[in-house]
Formats: sequence, C-alpha cells, structure tokens
Amino acid sequence: MSDKAAKGVDPAHMSSAEFRERGHEMVDWIADYWDRLDQWPVRSQVSPGDIAAKMPDNPPEQPGGPEEWGAIFQDLEEIIVPGITHWQHPGFFAYFPANASGPSVLGELLSAGLGAQGMLWQTSPAMTEVETRVLDWMVGAFGLPDAFHTERSSGVGGGVIQGTASEATLVAMLAARGQALRDNPGVSADSLTAYASEQAHSSVIKAAMIAGLAAHPDDFSQVRKIPVDATMGMDVDQLARHMAEDRRAGRVPFFVCATVGTTATTGVDPVERVAGVLGSGGERPWLHVDAAFAGVMALCPEYRHLFRGVDVADSFVVNAHKWLLTNFDCSLFWVRDRHALLSALAITPDYLRNAATESGRVIDYRDWQIPLGRRFRALKLWFVLRHYGLEGLRAHLRKHMDMAAKFEQWVREDARFEVVAPRTSSLVCFRPVGSDGQAHALLDAVNATGEVYLTHCMLPRFDEHGDRAGSCMALRMAIGGMKTRLEDVARAWSILTEQADRLSASSSG
Amino acid sequence: MSDKAAKGVDPAHMSSAEFRERGHEMVDWIADYWDRLDQWPVRSQVSPGDIAAKMPDNPPEQPGGPEEWGAIFQDLEEIIVPGITHWQHPGFFAYFPANASGPSVLGELLSAGLGAQGMLWQTSPAMTEVETRVLDWMVGAFGLPDAFHTERSSGVGGGVIQGTASEATLVAMLAARGQALRDNPGVSADSLTAYASEQAHSSVIKAAMIAGLAAHPDDFSQVRKIPVDATMGMDVDQLARHMAEDRRAGRVPFFVCATVGTTATTGVDPVERVAGVLGSGGERPWLHVDAAFAGVMALCPEYRHLFRGVDVADSFVVNAHKWLLTNFDCSLFWVRDRHALLSALAITPDYLRNAATESGRVIDYRDWQIPLGRRFRALKLWFVLRHYGLEGLRAHLRKHMDMAAKFEQWVREDARFEVVAPRTSSLVCFRPVGSDGQAHALLDAVNATGEVYLTHCMLPRFDEHGDRAGSCMALRMAIGGMKTRLEDVARAWSILTEQADRLSASSSG
Repeated sequence: MSDKAAKGVDPAHMSSAEFRERGHEMVDWIADYWDRLDQWPVRSQVSPGDIAAKMPDNPPEQPGGPEEWGAIFQDLEEIIVPGITHWQHPGFFAYFPANASGPSVLGELLSAGLGAQGMLWQTSPAMTEVETRVLDWMVGAFGLPDAFHTERSSGVGGGVIQGTASEATLVAMLAARGQALRDNPGVSADSLTAYASEQAHSSVIKAAMIAGLAAHPDDFSQVRKIPVDATMGMDVDQLARHMAEDRRAGRVPFFVCATVGTTATTGVDPVERVAGVLGSGGERPWLHVDAAFAGVMALCPEYRHLFRGVDVADSFVVNAHKWLLTNFDCSLFWVRDRHALLSALAITPDYLRNAATESGRVIDYRDWQIPLGRRFRALKLWFVLRHYGLEGLRAHLRKHMDMAAKFEQWVREDARFEVVAPRTSSLVCFRPVGSDGQAHALLDAVNATGEVYLTHCMLPRFDEHGDRAGSCMALRMAIGGMKTRLEDVARAWSILTEQADRLSASSSG
Repeated sequence: MSDKAAKGVDPAHMSSAEFRERGHEMVDWIADYWDRLDQWPVRSQVSPGDIAAKMPDNPPEQPGGPEEWGAIFQDLEEIIVPGITHWQHPGFFAYFPANASGPSVLGELLSAGLGAQGMLWQTSPAMTEVETRVLDWMVGAFGLPDAFHTERSSGVGGGVIQGTASEATLVAMLAARGQALRDNPGVSADSLTAYASEQAHSSVIKAAMIAGLAAHPDDFSQVRKIPVDATMGMDVDQLARHMAEDRRAGRVPFFVCATVGTTATTGVDPVERVAGVLGSGGERPWLHVDAAFAGVMALCPEYRHLFRGVDVADSFVVNAHKWLLTNFDCSLFWVRDRHALLSALAITPDYLRNAATESGRVIDYRDWQIPLGRRFRALKLWFVLRHYGLEGLRAHLRKHMDMAAKFEQWVREDARFEVVAPRTSSLVCFRPVGSDGQAHALLDAVNATGEVYLTHCMLPRFDEHGDRAGSCMALRMAIGGMKTRLEDVARAWSILTEQADRLSASSSG
C-alpha cells in the first residue's frame, strides 16, 4: 500500500452535475463552431511546430479542478482551432468530403458514454445485433446481393463495420490469400498474384505489404497494376492478359480489386466485365469491390448501373463516413463467405470462451477485423438513417451531383480550362490550359485565399484514338460537404477564374 | 439530373438549435445512465436474436422529423440498454476495465464535432502536433526511455496513438519483419521466427497470421510459444534455448514480444533478462513490450520496477483506454526507430503529396498505422490529463491496487478458496478449492445474480518445486472501474462465498 493511497488522495472524478454542465457547454461549442465555420481559412495556415509550441513541456501534476475547464475552452480557440483544417467548411473541396452530421455526432457521443466493448456478442449483444441489422438494411438500400445479407444468406455471408476501407481491403485480401492457399495445396504464398488498376487506392499495395506479398510500395512482383483506359476505369483486356500470363508462368491469381469510384477521379472499373474474365471454380480469384467513396450512389436508382456486376463480388466496401453524413470512422463491409474471413482472422483464447460463442448462434465481430476491441459504431449510422430516411440521404447526394454538373459545365464553357476525366460522381477533375507548373501555381493561389481548399492528382492523358499520351496534373473539385451550397461552388469557380487571370497577367506582364 | 433533385427534396439537416437541444438531452441521458447503472444486471441477460427482433426489417424511407428523436430516446431504453453489458457498472470485474470518464467522453464528442481528418499533418496540423506532444508527455510520466521521445530522440523515435494494442503489436511485427529482411539479405520470410510467452495476448499469433507467418492460430512453425514459470512470466532460459536452436537450424529470430501484465493474470515477463539474451547487432531481434493493461502502473514510482529493461525495447504499447480513464480507443505506442515503421507502412500516392510532407519537418501519422484515416484521439487523453493531473491518475490506480490487496487477503484467509497466480496488479486470479467443473458452476452462479460480472481463464499449475503440474480454471477479479468502491468489491466477495456455500450444500444434499 502506498503512502498516497493511505492518505486517500482523491482521483477527483467529474461529478454527474459537472458532466452535464461541461457536456452542454461542449455541445454548444460544437454548434457554435459549425455556425462560425466560414470565419476561418479552410486549410489551417500554421507552420510546422506552431501548435506544439503553445503547449507546455509536461502534463499537469495536480488535478485541474473546475476552473480548468475554462482554460480548456480557451485553448480550443487558441491552440486547437487555428490548427484545424476545416473539413466541415462549406468551401472544403479537397480529398473527399467527410461529413459529420448532428445525428451522427450524437451517436458517437452515445457510444462513448455507454463505454461498452463489442469484441464478442456477449460483451454487449446490442452492439452486435444492431450492427448486423443495420448492415442488412443497407444491403437492401444499396441493392447489394442477398449473398451479403446475414439472414437471406442463412448466415453464410454478412456485413460488419470496419474502421476504414483500408482495413476492409486488407481483411478481404487476407481472406482471399487463405482461400487460395487452401484451394491450391502445395502452392506457396510467393506464387499468389493480386490485380488492381493503376488508379486503385494505395490501400491495395499497403495491404499486400502488410500481408507479406510486397516488400515496398514499388514492389509489383506479386501485385499487378492494370492500366486504365480513357474512361479512367480498368482495361479489362489487359487484366485478362495479365492473369493468363501469370497462370502460364505457374502463378495463382488470387485477388482482384475492382474500384467503383477511384480516389483520383472516381473512375469506375467495369465490374461486370471484370467478373467475366476471372475464370471459375478453384481457379477464380476473390473479387473485392472498393466503392469507398462512390458506393453510396447505389442508394439512387439512377446510379445503380455503375454497380453492375457487384452481385457476383466476394466482398464490397463503402464508407458511410465520407458522403453519407456519418462521422469517421464507419466503413461498411460485406463478404459473401464469412468462413473465409474467419479462417484468416479467428482466434479464441481461453479467456474469451463463452456459452454464446460456443452455441454458434451469435456473431463475434472481433473475428471479422484486425483489432480485438470495437466501438458501437452502428449507433451513428442508425441515428443518421432514422433522422434522414433514405429519401433524405438521396436528396443530399443528388444536390451535390447537380452542383457538380453545373461546375463541370462552367469549366467546359471556359476556354481557359479543360475537364480532364469523365465525371461519374460529384467530383470534377479539371485544369487550366497550360503546363503542370501553371496548374500547381493556380492551386496554390486558390488555396492561399483561405476561402476554399482543393487538392490535386496526377492523371494519364489519352489522345483522340484512346491511346496513352503522357500524364498531367489535375485539380480536384470534390463536392459533398453538408454545408456546401451552390453559391459556395459558384464562389469557388469565381476564385479559380480570378486567380487564373491574375497569374496569366503576371506571367505575361 | 434526377426528378427528385429537380423537385428539391430537402435532406432535412438538423438545425443548429435542434443539435443543441438533442445534444443536451443526450448528455443528460448519459449522465442519467451513469447514475442509474446499478439498476441493471451487469451482464446483459438477452438471448441471441432478442435485440434484432425489436428492430424493423428495413430502414425508414422518409426523414424522421423532430418527433423521431423522442422515439430514439425511447428505443435507447427499450432496445439498446437491455442489450448492453455495462462495462461502467461498479460490479463489472470481467476482462479488464474500460473506463469512460467524463473528461474523456467530452474529448471524443469534440473530436466528432470537429470532424477533421488526421491522416497527414496538413489535413489538420493540431491533430498531429497535440498527439505528438501528449505522447512525449507520457514518455516522462511513465519513465520511458528518451529514445521514444520525439524531441529528445531528435525525431528518430516517437509515439503515436493506435486504435488498439492488437494493431500496435501488428505494426511492431511488420517493422521488425522488414528490418530483419533488410539486415539479412537472401533470407526469406519463411525463415523468420517470433517469440512470445504462452501467456502472451492472442494478438501476437493474429499479427503473425496477418503478416503471413502463420497459416492458422495453431501454426507455430514460425512463432514459438515460450513456457512461463511459476511467476506466470516467461522462462527466459527457454527463450534463449529456443533462439539458439532456431539459429543453429538456419532460422532468423526477428521479433520477441515481452508482456508486462498478461491478459490472464497480469504476469510479467522479466524484460531486462529477456533483453539480455537477445544477442547484438544485426542478429538481435526486435523487442516489443506489450503492457496493454498494466503499463499505466509505470505512472507510480512504486511499480516502476515491473518495467526494468524497457529502456532497451524497440517498441512499447500501453492502453489509455483500459485503466487510465480514457474511453476506447486510445492505445499509446512508441518506437525507438520510426524509420523501421515507415519502411513497413509508408506509401505516398500523388494525391497525398504536399509541401509540408516533402519538407520532412512534419509527421504524417498515416504512415505509422494500418488505416489511412484517423480521428483526433489525443483530445480525450489531453482532457483526462488536464482534469485529473498525474496525481489524480495515480490516486485512481492506487485505490484499485488497495482494493485488490484486500480482496486477495480475503481469498487467502478463506479455506474454501485459493489464489492461483501471483498478484502484480489490481487483478486477482483465484478459484474455489475443487474441480474445474465446480469453478465453472460458481462463476455461472455468481454472474447469474446480475450484481457482478467476472470472467475466467485457464492457467498452468506448478508444484512446490516449480515444476508444471497440469492446468486449472481460474476466476478473474479484475478491479479497475471508475465507479467501483471498496464496498462493491466486498459485495462481490460476499456473493462468491454465498454462492460457493449454496453450491456445496446442493451437491452434498
């Protein structure tokens, strides 16, 4: 027993009354933050080290007491907010949107307050059953195959919430690796080859690195980067050719990632055609569909055609935490055969054994993911669905689609600019006519205004015959923020044209 | 353009006023939940399917409108709470504690409300810099080596918040794998061998499965399970013998996990002695210290001795989200050589290139972890540190240590029970004298009261010479909940003795 304990030092827990008071203040601070968003530059303007320099070198030794919360709220304004790039700002057009809606934030708060663990069904049955049910709902809402629906697949397939699409792609690859090694006895992991388009997300090669199938990001000895065609979707003939070559060389194609909505342009790999060249039986590789951003468009019948072929996919991922008003993290993942996933990830040490698990009647989601512990993430999606309804969510998506169509039209009608990728979603890839250096200068000038924030990508170019003709830098106008109105998009276009004129005047002046 | 959009269906976003109102209600609901915890059975009593059966088969089509929130709060009581195992209940002694303190929950709420992404420094500099600073603070607070401190190691080492210790152990193993393959050119991954005690966490074998070094949980071709001795810590002579044998067989020991506070008993591997047998130079394997639960005891000088040897570890993980009043997830992870980690995980696609990253003056935490995206998890730990101060946190730990010492004494003084593992933390492993069947019956009877919840583990037994003598089932009394008072521990002991008497009467009757 320590002296301190003997003296009975009090841990100074927050009382119920104090939690209510500080909690209301925090809710109000967040509401004020959302109301005030346009008073700050979208992208944080601090330099490296600026934020850390405002913090003490050591944590406090003594409990802060009630007055500390005054200091905390002051520090939010003085330390935190200047170092935030405001992803909820109406002028945020960078990367992809990451909507944090009110209902969703309340779901996150509730999950934290319940403070329960969802690693096993038994550790909080509601965490598992609500998640399964909500994922089943989304199978119907997105028009995904019954094979992904827990009940309709008789428990063979099913859905789970992963933290990120990167983790979903990783666990899909691990399930595929195990299945291929079981289906091809005597084949070593060195002989397995994975396929994805050159525009696929970096998480595919990262998954291969983690799984031991690539030594570094440029190691393509077991991962084939398949070129895209002028649609920015995978050239399926090249996929077929690579797979045939690999098979002739004694290799085993085990995993194909088809992307519906690539990160750079939201290009779409033709899933149905991809599925058509995979082969059959034990030879057929696992087909994973990465629809991290654009997958939510499947809510709208008019965009369902982008997903043709998904009905034969082995796994599918879409992020509710980008465009679907659910705050990060909430990545929806389904598998056709949960046993492949469990074979790759399930472990039951003695201290986790329990009657419910051994009955075989429950799902233990720890075996569907990399981590052991898990938060109650289904709550936030459940609240979003109840607050908005599917029609509200469709309206949200359609508003951005309409804004993007207008923005694209403005670009097309302006001789100073060009659209450099087909538009399939609310993202427009475009550039000023001229060199990449000029495009970078424009991007920097536009972002320096603080009113908007756009990011860029590098894209292959194609000539009029559809043949590759070098590459170019493109600006990405990613529309999808909850607070973004048409006038914000119009303001972005004004800034782009003004800055383009200014740069062109100064270079010719 | 769709008909719906043309008709201008409104997504029905929550207004600022409505968010404040619902937010205050949610804060109050959580405070009420915490105040009411002892009115529910600790472990949820529902049967598989009970919760799902209360939910509709499909999500709503139409926006819920303001009245929906009344229904949501009603469903919290009727659907969610009955399906929650109450980890914050004063009678929760199962697994390990998972404290969700007020300050921490407010930090989680703020993180959700800011809705920013921390994948790159640039995507919100405060998210990275606050995290680095708070992790540096904890290096001092825990007495960890300067090699882990970002500033004092001149940016060679450093800390990062992972979601879970499982992920920390995985990334440590990936860094070690890459380093070993670089240090031993020509050696294949098949020749690498990892070592951990038989009492190490299941995440070690799971990491090996993910990394492609084990085909299934019972594949120990590349992972050696080292026996423990009667202390429940690793038998270091056996570790040395296994490593020497493996080296003679041409294998390359690349990763040793030493656990400070095992999951079953919080047994402690003698890190200093483990470090002493690893060898040196390119031959020396990576030393990872898994202190997921017990690591926070390093805050108290009187327990620092458990961590002797950590100063030469290559990586270290401790969960703030178990005993340190910070709600899940918040796993603190440090590495001595961040470049080993970056070599295993860093990828920079074009669309993430930016001036700050290329300056080399910032940390991009996406390259320190499995996922790409990341939440602002440092906020909750920052709030906890400011609210409690280090002294408040020490007082919190010491109160539980004192309670555990008392509980252990009660067990030792009662001839009906025995303590079956040395106690090093606030966890007591014990059992009723008799068969495993009787121990299981007691556990079931005690948990059926609903007043307390304990879990179990399987342990090796040792005779008076320290030789292995079979195994036995043990009950785990894991003390560490924020609301647990000495009277709750005493009540648990009463229930245990009452139920033991009842069972013994009914079996002899």
